[in-house]
Amino acid sequence: MTIEIDVTIKLKHGVTDPEGENTKKTLNLLGFRDVRSVKTAKTFRIEIEQEKGDEEKVMQEVEEMCRKLLANPVIHNYDIKMVK
Amino acid sequence: MTIEIDVTIKLKHGVTDPEGENTKKTLNLLGFRDVRSVKTAKTFRIEIEQEKGDEEKVMQEVEEMCRKLLANPVIHNYDIKMVK
Repeated sequence: MTIEIDVTIKLKHGVTDPEGENTKKTLNLLGFRDVRSVKTAKTFRIEIEQEKGDEEKVMQEVEEMCRKLLANPVIHNYDIKMVK
Repeated sequence: MTIEIDVTIKLKHGVTDPEGENTKKTLNLLGFRDVRSVKTAKTFRIEIEQEKGDEEKVMQEVEEMCRKLLANPVIHNYDIKMVK
């Protein structure tokens, strides 16, 4: 049985987001003058093979993946969400 | 009044996702052997100034932003979701 989990990596409050800022500027230049801000985030959709009823263990494992590889704790926050 | 909208940009089915593939390989190497696949996506959280009750117009505007700037129709699909 496979389970799908979305890990969303966001920049912490106060960390500059040049991609978001430039997207905002470009949208304004393209005529979308009501755009006040743009912030970017990255999502990893991870498919994991697991035994039935092991959801909690899987969530802990994904938490560990974030700490070890996916997120940089200096600049990132992350959300973990089960899709199915 | 401001409204927040999440635009999620995903790769179309069949388009290679080297970042996802390498993340999957690295997670496997780190000992997370149950990971079957990893797919990446990008989210833009867009804050838009609007008149009250103008949600539909805003959604159309964001659709236009995707076509004009945020997504590449050759390789991307996009989802638009109102946050608040």
